[in-house]
Amino acid sequence: MSTHILTVDLGERSYPIIIGRGLLSGGFDLARYMPGNHCLVVTNETVGPLYLEKLQGCLAGMTSRSLALPDGESFKTSATMQTIIDELVTDKAGRDATVVALGGGVVGDIAGFASACYMRGVAFVQVPTTLLAQVDSSVGGKTGVNHEGGKNLIGAFHQPNVVLIDTDTLSTLPDREFRAGLAEVIKYGAIVDIDFFAWLESNLQALLDRNPDELAYAIRRSCELKAAVVAEDERESGRRALLNFGHTFGHAIENTMGYGEWLHGEAVAAGMVLAAEMSGIDKSELRRLTALIESAGLPIKPPPAGAGRLREAMQLDKKVQANKLRFVLLHSLGDAFVTADYADEALGEVLQSADT
Amino acid sequence: MSTHILTVDLGERSYPIIIGRGLLSGGFDLARYMPGNHCLVVTNETVGPLYLEKLQGCLAGMTSRSLALPDGESFKTSATMQTIIDELVTDKAGRDATVVALGGGVVGDIAGFASACYMRGVAFVQVPTTLLAQVDSSVGGKTGVNHEGGKNLIGAFHQPNVVLIDTDTLSTLPDREFRAGLAEVIKYGAIVDIDFFAWLESNLQALLDRNPDELAYAIRRSCELKAAVVAEDERESGRRALLNFGHTFGHAIENTMGYGEWLHGEAVAAGMVLAAEMSGIDKSELRRLTALIESAGLPIKPPPAGAGRLREAMQLDKKVQANKLRFVLLHSLGDAFVTADYADEALGEVLQSADT
Repeated sequence: MSTHILTVDLGERSYPIIIGRGLLSGGFDLARYMPGNHCLVVTNETVGPLYLEKLQGCLAGMTSRSLALPDGESFKTSATMQTIIDELVTDKAGRDATVVALGGGVVGDIAGFASACYMRGVAFVQVPTTLLAQVDSSVGGKTGVNHEGGKNLIGAFHQPNVVLIDTDTLSTLPDREFRAGLAEVIKYGAIVDIDFFAWLESNLQALLDRNPDELAYAIRRSCELKAAVVAEDERESGRRALLNFGHTFGHAIENTMGYGEWLHGEAVAAGMVLAAEMSGIDKSELRRLTALIESAGLPIKPPPAGAGRLREAMQLDKKVQANKLRFVLLHSLGDAFVTADYADEALGEVLQSADT
Repeated sequence: MSTHILTVDLGERSYPIIIGRGLLSGGFDLARYMPGNHCLVVTNETVGPLYLEKLQGCLAGMTSRSLALPDGESFKTSATMQTIIDELVTDKAGRDATVVALGGGVVGDIAGFASACYMRGVAFVQVPTTLLAQVDSSVGGKTGVNHEGGKNLIGAFHQPNVVLIDTDTLSTLPDREFRAGLAEVIKYGAIVDIDFFAWLESNLQALLDRNPDELAYAIRRSCELKAAVVAEDERESGRRALLNFGHTFGHAIENTMGYGEWLHGEAVAAGMVLAAEMSGIDKSELRRLTALIESAGLPIKPPPAGAGRLREAMQLDKKVQANKLRFVLLHSLGDAFVTADYADEALGEVLQSADT
């Protein structure tokens, strides 16, 4: 297996994404991406026991400490972020310290936010160990924590110095989480790359079998597509919003169910089907999207929460977005656009039909 | 009195500093600098009763709410910042909301940090009402809060959309705070502008009398000088560190005394004299600096804390800075430089002599 290196092109904030097998156990030299000789590795209680020691083998010449957060989205809070800051202060970490996130999206988001705020910003390295984090949350610089009033309400844009993706870490990922990660992979095909979508249709079984070659390609292509979108629109003033395909519905699903019952990727999967229906794309294309999502073992409709409750959750979202609820819709499969100009009846019909 | 407009030149993050008399009571149109039609005014219990109503007269067409923080540096904490976030969430403020800081440096730093983090950054407007905030903290985008382990350890660079300086607000500023603000004004002359320094020597009494014309000029020139430095080096990787003249000693003084006993400007004043002594500049120039600081009613030596304790405080600072304690020294009055290469004996002598 070869190692692939992509670049997220953001001028002086550009950084590489390094994808390969056995990078951690092979002692990949992570230290050379760090400005100083000290780092704090932030992980969680599940991932730490599996990969922390291996990661430390990638930090030759560095002094490092580690901090294991409790595992779970419910700990993605300001309070947890503060424990990382406290650790950095206790450690007398200087401006040239680096925070390393070893884990899934939650660890990456909290650790990234702490690195963005400590001394107004220190270096940050992402070592994502879940499929979702590898293809989505570790790339693009969005960091943050949740607030009782909503997800990711507090955060910063803070790009990492490097993203190290060791595909071997997926071997320990529970099946349900793996499938949830696939939802975001499918998303990239659906919004900007019909060829990749077709490739996914042809290679889904190999992916579900976690065949290393196909897995590496799917991760690489996802990162390439996300990197291209982020390079064009780092702070989501336009095109980057395409990445939210399925997410307006998805967030409403998560909100009505309470976070944690459905995984984020599961909610996004059902949300993509709803968004595609609302788009009014060709029936055959809608069937292709639905079939791929279903074959990946993901939900194709929201839980029977009732159209009313979903609607309500979206209204709330709408207020938070200053009355401009935006949807990412499809012109056709592989060609998405963002709009705040949608027919309210179309939305109603989609929600209604999901109920039946 | 005319209104002056300066620009802080930071590419797409450029913004104006508007300086004049009676801007608040005259209903200056602040709303046009805000992206949406909603704002949250953050002030404190001292400033709010004096200027909040006037400020609201500058927000025609906006819906606004206000939040009064307790007054004082001891409240510059993550917990206080969180109350601003909570208010924004309760208010369902959207991405196009604006946070307005009405008050001194503490209010500006906390409110600015909250605006930097809410939804990964919303618009921010500074309406500084103390001399220190007008000539220093409101310009340049440094925001943040303190941590038990040190000042400003948690924060962000987040530039405002506009800085509105109504010099009339200084009429209610207590004398001691006014003088502390003058320390930073004197600093600009000392580090980069000998002509301004000479102007200050000639016009100090008019400033102490708060003569509007001289005051407006001193504020304008200070903002111009700071804006120029910030434009060159927004994130303090080089030249911006010049603005820390007197601050390494100043922080040590604040640390050994406990924050709050001396005002920041007072500690910086004594710190500037120590830094000038350590620089080994011409005796006549040292006398000019000391005389101007003393005439402004500011301390020219640290409190009798003992050289040992100051030394200790600086060692601590040094560890936090990853063993690179940097000093801003003077080649001559009006010409400062940053260095980590200083004679330890020179430092020892300066501290020793301050003790006697």
